[in-house]
Amino acid sequence: MNTDNYNKVTSIIFKELEVVVGNANISSDKEQLEKYGQDHTEDFIFLADVIVKPQTVEQISAIAKLCNDNKIPLTTRGAGTGLSGGALPVKGGVLLSMEKFNKILNIDERNLQATVEPGVINYIFQEEVKKLGLFYPPDPASWGSCSLGGNIAHSSGGPKAVKYGTTRDYVLNLEVVLANGEIIWTGANTLKYSTGYNLTHLMIGSEGTLGIVTKIVFKLIPLPKHDLLMLIPFKSAEQACEAVGAVFREGIIPSAMEFMERDAIDWSMKYAGEVNFEIKPEWQALLLVEVDGNNLDVLMSDCEIISTVMQNHGCDEILFADSAEQKNALWKIRRKVGESVKSNSVYKEEDTVVPRAELPKLLRGVKEIGKKYGFKSVCYGHAGDGNLHVNIIKGNLPDSVWQNDLPKGITEIFELCKALGGTISGEHGVGLVQKPYLPIVFPPHQLDLMRNIKKVFDANCILNPEKIF
Amino acid sequence: MNTDNYNKVTSIIFKELEVVVGNANISSDKEQLEKYGQDHTEDFIFLADVIVKPQTVEQISAIAKLCNDNKIPLTTRGAGTGLSGGALPVKGGVLLSMEKFNKILNIDERNLQATVEPGVINYIFQEEVKKLGLFYPPDPASWGSCSLGGNIAHSSGGPKAVKYGTTRDYVLNLEVVLANGEIIWTGANTLKYSTGYNLTHLMIGSEGTLGIVTKIVFKLIPLPKHDLLMLIPFKSAEQACEAVGAVFREGIIPSAMEFMERDAIDWSMKYAGEVNFEIKPEWQALLLVEVDGNNLDVLMSDCEIISTVMQNHGCDEILFADSAEQKNALWKIRRKVGESVKSNSVYKEEDTVVPRAELPKLLRGVKEIGKKYGFKSVCYGHAGDGNLHVNIIKGNLPDSVWQNDLPKGITEIFELCKALGGTISGEHGVGLVQKPYLPIVFPPHQLDLMRNIKKVFDANCILNPEKIF
Repeated sequence: MNTDNYNKVTSIIFKELEVVVGNANISSDKEQLEKYGQDHTEDFIFLADVIVKPQTVEQISAIAKLCNDNKIPLTTRGAGTGLSGGALPVKGGVLLSMEKFNKILNIDERNLQATVEPGVINYIFQEEVKKLGLFYPPDPASWGSCSLGGNIAHSSGGPKAVKYGTTRDYVLNLEVVLANGEIIWTGANTLKYSTGYNLTHLMIGSEGTLGIVTKIVFKLIPLPKHDLLMLIPFKSAEQACEAVGAVFREGIIPSAMEFMERDAIDWSMKYAGEVNFEIKPEWQALLLVEVDGNNLDVLMSDCEIISTVMQNHGCDEILFADSAEQKNALWKIRRKVGESVKSNSVYKEEDTVVPRAELPKLLRGVKEIGKKYGFKSVCYGHAGDGNLHVNIIKGNLPDSVWQNDLPKGITEIFELCKALGGTISGEHGVGLVQKPYLPIVFPPHQLDLMRNIKKVFDANCILNPEKIF
Repeated sequence: MNTDNYNKVTSIIFKELEVVVGNANISSDKEQLEKYGQDHTEDFIFLADVIVKPQTVEQISAIAKLCNDNKIPLTTRGAGTGLSGGALPVKGGVLLSMEKFNKILNIDERNLQATVEPGVINYIFQEEVKKLGLFYPPDPASWGSCSLGGNIAHSSGGPKAVKYGTTRDYVLNLEVVLANGEIIWTGANTLKYSTGYNLTHLMIGSEGTLGIVTKIVFKLIPLPKHDLLMLIPFKSAEQACEAVGAVFREGIIPSAMEFMERDAIDWSMKYAGEVNFEIKPEWQALLLVEVDGNNLDVLMSDCEIISTVMQNHGCDEILFADSAEQKNALWKIRRKVGESVKSNSVYKEEDTVVPRAELPKLLRGVKEIGKKYGFKSVCYGHAGDGNLHVNIIKGNLPDSVWQNDLPKGITEIFELCKALGGTISGEHGVGLVQKPYLPIVFPPHQLDLMRNIKKVFDANCILNPEKIF
């Protein structure tokens, strides 16, 4: 989009921002700019002109108005755990950190709702509602450090999405500051809503390009009383993927259905340390399957059915986690895959998603494309949702291949996703890094529609420039 | 919106339309125009210039282009069962009936998905997927005659929404013809989606004002094997409403939690006929509560817990439906309330929605406002969702009161909804009849945002003019 005529933060504007947020909440120190110039996406770094840490919606409104009037880029940042570069201040300007919007304002037990600020960390929120017997299911791998506002920016998922849906499914209403400083509530605090265009759903997944979320009303559900966890090894990754779809066709919806291929397991176990669990040499993939609910007998019976399905698809011996410690250990292996890959090598993560039953075709295709272009990939993810994270490893690949050939390979992977009825991002967003690939899934007139929606909300294109389009 | 400079369908344009759809699929007979000039909303009638019944997406694209180039109003109609006037051709022009888009194109058992045309009747679709052990939960009261496309226009709910969500929660992807004739797919056929602005969710609930849906990809789920149904009488309507929230706080999510006040029951039983069921004079309200799942013992136990909760809230003797016939009879009473009210008197239906636990306050407020303005209301609806249908009865009210005072009363009801965290429509849409009340819930700058989104999709405002705004 038209983003070439931005202005810098001058000393006058710096002073005006300082008046708004107070001098303890503004910084242009180089060290700070570097810290806030990165997220968890590859090795990118972009420096803003200034970092502000507002504490009230009125302050954010004033900051937006100032940036809008002066055409200064304004990039909102949650916890900086994003994997698509969504929080990077690519065009400089003002970096608005939501870290001080970190309060759970209200947990309404009568209505099974909660009102929170977007800087609250996902896991902290989960634990707080759990104390009241309530459940907020969306649980990205980074739940211990990611913020709820960031989750909304990308409609984040996580293992439990397969049964409980993604962040989108739990948002009832949002307070949003628009680019011109106006403040709106997008909807109502109701389970049903059919009152004009659904601005709540438009805002979710818009990656900070349409407004700045300042309050969130979440729907909560009763906390299931029990869960059971099984680890199911396969000698063939494709067989594991085939087994996934068969479980749902038996009428069972697990609360997690995670897939890891061999390298992902090895790397993660090495990285996570202290996990005492033997991986046989012939295992090529693992499924981590969880069921939850209020009746333990029913869950046992579900596990038996799942076991039968898995055995029919050629699994090896199934491990039932028999203690909270063992469950945590197995989940740790799964949750640490991303970090372990990152610690091993420069890599690119693609967040491919296809209809569930097409997963074996996607996996096979990714490997064939890898062979063709000479790259290795480590695949894992939310098999129950058809959402496969493809980590492409740089390792010893020459820079020229990484720079020039790899984008062709990624293009082929995304073309395959589209051909299978899928798309280029299931839960990480387009952000900066998937932007070049968006035309694979949308024709020009559809991209224009989205650009024009952007202009309705942000005529000067100050909000999170260079993202999505 | 700017809708005063439309053109009529001239004989030349009629001929062009005839070339597109064939002469068997176009009509300007007065009788036909009258038939297609009404829906189920009060006693409104508006005549289009011409009715077309296209059979392919290419035909719809050509019709849209023709209307757009000539600035002719284009109103899309599903089955005409809407309750907010959404399908009425208020500005004349072309009435586009989707009745020939009535094919279930594919039920994909591997992926638990189905691709359908929008003219398919809700109940027919439900029955078809049921044959394969699959479940499409959204079930508006009019399911026997409403179309899936109409359900998308308003994000329709129904009794099962309390456990399974509304239409919105089952739509994965939409093929849409835009006002200028361009055709897009809004998303992908995936359970997770984080790839640009979510045009699928923007389209859902937009009441035919942003585009014409021509194909729908739905998510399906496994069909629960069992359900149990209880009818629970109360001597006080407010006590019944209080009991509703308490059930969820016990950790149980029923698959239906319907409320009917006394008059609704009496009228419906009289209208439905042949239902052999004694209503004691002291009963002021009934709850119809259903649980479903795969394990009958669990459902029995859930019913026991629900019974205890209900008894603690002062219910009278609970009736368990003990046969399929009895279940059908009880559901018939609930489903026929709307029709029975309509057959008794001219009425206005308000689709109020609030957070679940605020339902008693809403009910009390509606009755007080009724007293103040001298109108009687019959209330019923989806108590588990906080979604109360308020049927305001004309009866013997003088026309002057109906025309002049009633809007003030309705305004107060909607102001109460907003004050309780709710809004003016949960599942029926704004359409024509709630349009005057939209400023109660949205400030002018938010209405402008919506109007500007409309212009992005439909610069000439040809699609379903005079609706929502």
